[in-house]
Amino acid sequence: MKWKRSERLVDMTHYLLEHPHQLIPLTYFSDLYQSAKSSISEDLGIVKETFEEKGIGLLMTVPGASGGVKYVPKMKDAEIRQVMDGLITELSQSDRLLPGGYLYMTDVLGNPQMMNRVGKVFASAFAGEKIDAIMTVATKGIPIAQAIARHLNVPVVIVRRDSKVTEGSTVSINYVSGSTRRIQTMVLSKRSMKSGQRVLITDDFMKVGGTMNGMKNLLEEFDCTLAGVAVLVEAEHADERLVEKYLSLVKLDEVSEKDRTITLRAGNYFEGAD
Amino acid sequence: MKWKRSERLVDMTHYLLEHPHQLIPLTYFSDLYQSAKSSISEDLGIVKETFEEKGIGLLMTVPGASGGVKYVPKMKDAEIRQVMDGLITELSQSDRLLPGGYLYMTDVLGNPQMMNRVGKVFASAFAGEKIDAIMTVATKGIPIAQAIARHLNVPVVIVRRDSKVTEGSTVSINYVSGSTRRIQTMVLSKRSMKSGQRVLITDDFMKVGGTMNGMKNLLEEFDCTLAGVAVLVEAEHADERLVEKYLSLVKLDEVSEKDRTITLRAGNYFEGAD
Repeated sequence: MKWKRSERLVDMTHYLLEHPHQLIPLTYFSDLYQSAKSSISEDLGIVKETFEEKGIGLLMTVPGASGGVKYVPKMKDAEIRQVMDGLITELSQSDRLLPGGYLYMTDVLGNPQMMNRVGKVFASAFAGEKIDAIMTVATKGIPIAQAIARHLNVPVVIVRRDSKVTEGSTVSINYVSGSTRRIQTMVLSKRSMKSGQRVLITDDFMKVGGTMNGMKNLLEEFDCTLAGVAVLVEAEHADERLVEKYLSLVKLDEVSEKDRTITLRAGNYFEGAD
Repeated sequence: MKWKRSERLVDMTHYLLEHPHQLIPLTYFSDLYQSAKSSISEDLGIVKETFEEKGIGLLMTVPGASGGVKYVPKMKDAEIRQVMDGLITELSQSDRLLPGGYLYMTDVLGNPQMMNRVGKVFASAFAGEKIDAIMTVATKGIPIAQAIARHLNVPVVIVRRDSKVTEGSTVSINYVSGSTRRIQTMVLSKRSMKSGQRVLITDDFMKVGGTMNGMKNLLEEFDCTLAGVAVLVEAEHADERLVEKYLSLVKLDEVSEKDRTITLRAGNYFEGAD
């Protein structure tokens, strides 16, 4: 079957979007569409221009025999700001206030389109870095980790609070929870990570950063390196923060249980990891 | 800025793929691309043909003033069989065998491309049904639930084993674990589900179906209806199964700890929910 350019463009766009951060040889497309490499190159030129114009991402071309094309998800700053503003609006609703001054965020974490965008925002920040895996702690960080992982095309590694028979042998560490100062445990299946990997850690919420710090310690146990820290919402606690470098989308300034108000502002995403 | 057809096709494909099961008015595209509705209709004709030819999904056109176009993810049977076969090959590796005859699957659940395909397979099966939410139990079911949810564009609802302060007030039920016959607890935040919803429940593994049955009971507490059951791997226990209708991708026939063999075959996906 001979493909028309218009059909190739639609199918190619789908294929590239489904295979982010993966080098695809030009021969893959020329064989699939029974088309000359020159036609495929022209097609890719159109895809590249549209992806970049619309802030879908970059299309990197690697020349040579072992070369090909790679789709790198990368949002434009304006769209990232929209995601951050959208989160602030959504999370400011006073009915999110829970006893103890906690914020109800479970619905946001369960919203697939929102998580998809959040994942792409963080994947954009780490688009140029070598990331081998995304690590999080069960349960609330999982949707964010999975969304980032899809856009970076790397595995998700889930740390648990307890050991399960279905995890096989595990490595366990104790760490001090930042705000409550209690000793807590983290468990990770031995099989879930090889040594020498560069790992991005993520969670939905960070106060002092005890959990993040626990994950950092766990990385050391596996001879892995911290590649970055990505947080959806950080609470104002900068003076005693255990984690120095991180990216956040939203900063929780103040919660007043009495007035039932939640004060949020943009996180440090654009200031870089300071 | 005036868009060329080729650029419109690329951008439209991306937009449709990011907004599954969502009716998009033709005016959205004609305004965005500054193009006549007739041109947009022609574009969509090309997208539709390619999506259907390549098994990406369906493009449903709803005529009239409140009409538009809707992308419905739907894989071809041949590709679904490939996903099932891929899972069987992957899960048959003898080093997955854990003490007690359990199967290590955490890496498969952490593989974003694999989960994306699994999610699309289940979304294909329920493409024509009204689904309002996907429910699962923490932790291992979450990646599957999130992947299905992304393709059906509905929220994920996560049931927990324990109650957390960040969940607000909760509804809790007790249920009998199918295989161990122990009493267990399930907790769901009151805010996480409205009444009257049709809910698809999912998990990574089902033996007798105690956990699934627990979720069914929880649905009743919320005045919601069961829309379907989706399982990645079912174990051979049909005689005492608590759940009657479900779809599975893989069936675990036998595990021999002595011979270190795992015997798997295709699940009941194509036989329908029997």
